[in-house]
Amino acid sequence: MTNLTQEQSLEIKEARAASRVTRRVVSEGLEEVLYQAVPVLDHGFVRVIDYMGDDGAVVQAARVSYGRGTKKISEDRGLIHYLLRHWHTTPFEMAEIKFHVKLPIFVARQWIRHRMANVNEYSARYSTLDREFYIPAAEHLSAQSVQNRQGRGEVVGAAEAERVLRILTDDAQRNYDHYLDLLNHDEGGQQLRDDQRGLARELARMNLSLNFYTQWYWKTDLHNLMNFLRLRADPHAQYEIRVYAEVILDILKKWVPLTYEAFREHRLEAATFSGEALKALRRMLAGEHVEQLDTSMSKREWDEFLAKLELS
Amino acid sequence: MTNLTQEQSLEIKEARAASRVTRRVVSEGLEEVLYQAVPVLDHGFVRVIDYMGDDGAVVQAARVSYGRGTKKISEDRGLIHYLLRHWHTTPFEMAEIKFHVKLPIFVARQWIRHRMANVNEYSARYSTLDREFYIPAAEHLSAQSVQNRQGRGEVVGAAEAERVLRILTDDAQRNYDHYLDLLNHDEGGQQLRDDQRGLARELARMNLSLNFYTQWYWKTDLHNLMNFLRLRADPHAQYEIRVYAEVILDILKKWVPLTYEAFREHRLEAATFSGEALKALRRMLAGEHVEQLDTSMSKREWDEFLAKLELS
Amino acid sequence: MTNLTQEQSLEIKEARAASRVTRRVVSEGLEEVLYQAVPVLDHGFVRVIDYMGDDGAVVQAARVSYGRGTKKISEDRGLIHYLLRHWHTTPFEMAEIKFHVKLPIFVARQWIRHRMANVNEYSARYSTLDREFYIPAAEHLSAQSVQNRQGRGEVVGAAEAERVLRILTDDAQRNYDHYLDLLNHDEGGQQLRDDQRGLARELARMNLSLNFYTQWYWKTDLHNLMNFLRLRADPHAQYEIRVYAEVILDILKKWVPLTYEAFREHRLEAATFSGEALKALRRMLAGEHVEQLDTSMSKREWDEFLAKLELS
Amino acid sequence: MTNLTQEQSLEIKEARAASRVTRRVVSEGLEEVLYQAVPVLDHGFVRVIDYMGDDGAVVQAARVSYGRGTKKISEDRGLIHYLLRHWHTTPFEMAEIKFHVKLPIFVARQWIRHRMANVNEYSARYSTLDREFYIPAAEHLSAQSVQNRQGRGEVVGAAEAERVLRILTDDAQRNYDHYLDLLNHDEGGQQLRDDQRGLARELARMNLSLNFYTQWYWKTDLHNLMNFLRLRADPHAQYEIRVYAEVILDILKKWVPLTYEAFREHRLEAATFSGEALKALRRMLAGEHVEQLDTSMSKREWDEFLAKLELS
Repeated sequence: MTNLTQEQSLEIKEARAASRVTRRVVSEGLEEVLYQAVPVLDHGFVRVIDYMGDDGAVVQAARVSYGRGTKKISEDRGLIHYLLRHWHTTPFEMAEIKFHVKLPIFVARQWIRHRMANVNEYSARYSTLDREFYIPAAEHLSAQSVQNRQGRGEVVGAAEAERVLRILTDDAQRNYDHYLDLLNHDEGGQQLRDDQRGLARELARMNLSLNFYTQWYWKTDLHNLMNFLRLRADPHAQYEIRVYAEVILDILKKWVPLTYEAFREHRLEAATFSGEALKALRRMLAGEHVEQLDTSMSKREWDEFLAKLELS
Repeated sequence: MTNLTQEQSLEIKEARAASRVTRRVVSEGLEEVLYQAVPVLDHGFVRVIDYMGDDGAVVQAARVSYGRGTKKISEDRGLIHYLLRHWHTTPFEMAEIKFHVKLPIFVARQWIRHRMANVNEYSARYSTLDREFYIPAAEHLSAQSVQNRQGRGEVVGAAEAERVLRILTDDAQRNYDHYLDLLNHDEGGQQLRDDQRGLARELARMNLSLNFYTQWYWKTDLHNLMNFLRLRADPHAQYEIRVYAEVILDILKKWVPLTYEAFREHRLEAATFSGEALKALRRMLAGEHVEQLDTSMSKREWDEFLAKLELS
Repeated sequence: MTNLTQEQSLEIKEARAASRVTRRVVSEGLEEVLYQAVPVLDHGFVRVIDYMGDDGAVVQAARVSYGRGTKKISEDRGLIHYLLRHWHTTPFEMAEIKFHVKLPIFVARQWIRHRMANVNEYSARYSTLDREFYIPAAEHLSAQSVQNRQGRGEVVGAAEAERVLRILTDDAQRNYDHYLDLLNHDEGGQQLRDDQRGLARELARMNLSLNFYTQWYWKTDLHNLMNFLRLRADPHAQYEIRVYAEVILDILKKWVPLTYEAFREHRLEAATFSGEALKALRRMLAGEHVEQLDTSMSKREWDEFLAKLELS
Repeated sequence: MTNLTQEQSLEIKEARAASRVTRRVVSEGLEEVLYQAVPVLDHGFVRVIDYMGDDGAVVQAARVSYGRGTKKISEDRGLIHYLLRHWHTTPFEMAEIKFHVKLPIFVARQWIRHRMANVNEYSARYSTLDREFYIPAAEHLSAQSVQNRQGRGEVVGAAEAERVLRILTDDAQRNYDHYLDLLNHDEGGQQLRDDQRGLARELARMNLSLNFYTQWYWKTDLHNLMNFLRLRADPHAQYEIRVYAEVILDILKKWVPLTYEAFREHRLEAATFSGEALKALRRMLAGEHVEQLDTSMSKREWDEFLAKLELS
């Protein structure tokens, strides 16, 4: 995998080799993949570098609210399903996870909008960025969608793809060449011109384009992680952030298998029906034939309604 | 210790006996006291039930910002001092801790104002509260302060103390007797009167006074924990919450000894001087004799200024 | 109305009489009721004391994201419905409202769990609380529910109601008498016993029960206000907080009528169906007869499913 | 001013011409400049588009905590100074302000780290960005600092400046030319090549560099605004964000003059001394000659200590 430097690979190997004794709860599934980098896109990755709690932490927190009275009544699985179904969110805040992520800057700009998280990002004021930028695979080069103002339409043809990739690659390479030139040092950090100092890093970085890679540590709790996944693992999310969400979804399954299952059932695969949609639904279940004009739903809402029921 | 039920003591003993293997970072100091309840006030306690990260997590997060360039330059201790001195807060958000706390309701009402935390509280809608209420020790029964509108003054005399304690105890006992009566069950949960159901728990609880004990799980990150401690371990904090903060301060020392040391130095024992105070200070250091009227400070601000310099 | 002091009534009258010129957007509906106190429970109230923005602020914020391209396409009403239907929350954070609320302490304890808000509460460390406590009307005195561990069941009989009300009233009166006694002053603030100072306010308050009234300023944005209302105007919320939510719901209607309408439609009257529930629904719409055992839903989930469809 | 489009200038003129009647509190100073755009950098601006509350809102919130007892004692100015001096933050959360800001993307990336705010940003998934990018003035082109890993050193020479500006300008122009080419439309939005659709906007944008301008609405409360200003109006902040902070500082003065004055005094011009620094200070005030080695301060801390006292 070229997404990691040799130094990073070594660090990961060492970290994984270490084994310590703890009195804390352990998630066996997550321990297995701890520190390992899962490659994403052409140079990115996601890896878990620490965590706290498991499904049991959710259950324990829910039960402090119920008191001793209900201790034996509910089973863990049923309780977790109940909590998610009824939007009881605070017990899911009791488990925490920390990721190390390498991602293109335009993806980082979407990701950072999730405010209920802690972030420490690699700073291009302190350090020089590497010559690493995202170039989409040809099969992900889509034209602007006609119906959806923010979406992608059909994949572009082979010739156009080649042209696009050349532009993106040439510009990124030239931007980086000039970035080094402005900094007055070469790829290895050696000074280029003796007679002058390079431009301040905090200025030179502005010449890099939004597909350059950055890195950060990102820590959040299980509740906010699910909020992130609900939005970013959604088919409407931009492909380049969705692939990160999908990797994290897989990590979620290893970490908290019961919560993962309930999350799929009550969030990812669930659908919400408005008051008007419910009325239409009840009429349909009573055997009535209902059309859009029989309701107060707009054309767009009606289409979404049918799609949820797989009737379109 | 009477602050724990026998059931709780047993659970703690069991939890402490278990030992698991992990690839995660471990704080040896904290592992030693994990799950143990430290008694606070007459029936309360604080205990750590989980954590994530240690001093190293702070350093690691700070260094991702500096990039590889500075990896070997700074030592951990100096870096942590630097971060706190310059109010770099995000690296301290990368470590997390979870407490189980038993505390009087009026203390819980102050505590909950710290919003950057996660809480699951024992619910008196679901369960019946125990006959446990806070009665101050005689030496903490102070008269209203004359100078400080929100503080305590001198300790009251022995006769008055006895009178106060009798009132507090009698009222709490009667409130609890009536609480059970309203619920229509006795101390053991047995129904009292066969001919009727008890009042809903969510209503009956309103008859309890603010010194009754509640319990919660409280989880926060290291940065927000220090904010909590700066306010609540302060001499101006109400005694009944300060004793909790002092226990947590001791836990902080075991968990993250370097951060603890820097926190003492740059927060607890530090003092801030306003622009005007700095001007006065510079004149004094230049040998000038300065009095309040030579400055634009108010009497109150001047007194605080002298106190910080131990000149009052 | 006895829920306001004469002083407060006068202040409100004066505040409402004033009229100023502004370049800001104005919500006519909210201006009409600004500062007015709506009575809630026996001594409580809710009043709006400031606000920023209206439905237009939501639309404006949504459109900055769409850019100039879509400026004329969407109408405001449709856009607001679209935003709520698709859980686009940030535009609703752009309007803000501030309330002055008087409420029993046990209600305040539920309310404060909504962390995304700003609060300044009347402090019993600085000032003496009034002799005001909540006593439920007889028709709200319900027995503990048998099915629902946290709910209310049937209303208690007249004789039992009388008994309950006597206990609650007597205990609250006695608690307050003793509170004054501990403070060593009478109702008017005059010292009772010359030979001693009263107990510190921060201690004496612990003798008050949870039905005593407190007051606060509470400020939040439109998005978080709707979160509050979704949980607290829900039929499962405790009656004593629900009545506050219902008053605020009415204020919402005056402030942002379009958002209010969409909120009713897509939140209050909406229902979410899990993946399993959707499968059952699709089979039913295809004419199949489906029973609980044909699905993987639990008995409880199945009952909820039928209830949403009004088939139970 | 070329920082606004003609359309924007017109909108601002219209918005400023409107005048409405309100019962709300009004900040005369802020009304005067409401909606007006203050130019920042070569194409950016800051303008206030709404607000709620003024200095009085802070005072009112502080007093609800003190209760009626202290109503007449403190004057507003003294109270606000007291609150800031003693880090009482919640009353400052009671006033709110909303800005419209146009700023380079690399500045936006620093700005967004302030999480306690609400943001709606212009989306390059929905709309095409303009040909507007930041090119520093020659006098702000500084070399990398030698001492400070994240700072700027001396301004570069005229010849080098010319070279740098040419690189930055050429690359940004070319990036934008290719951005339009990828989108397959010209500056006016007309399709370039008939035989194909342009690349999806969400992809094409990645070819733009970090100095391109974006826009957003940004709303925060007075407390969090001061946190932002403390960090971003600081001499160590990057010049390109500091100029925005300075404009906002000027707006703060118009909006809440008393808070502004206290903020200067107790934050901007204040300095914090650690426990060790305080000990040294006390010895110096007692007439002792103190050097770094007499203390446990590091060289760096000692230099900062002297700088605060203007003794270096």
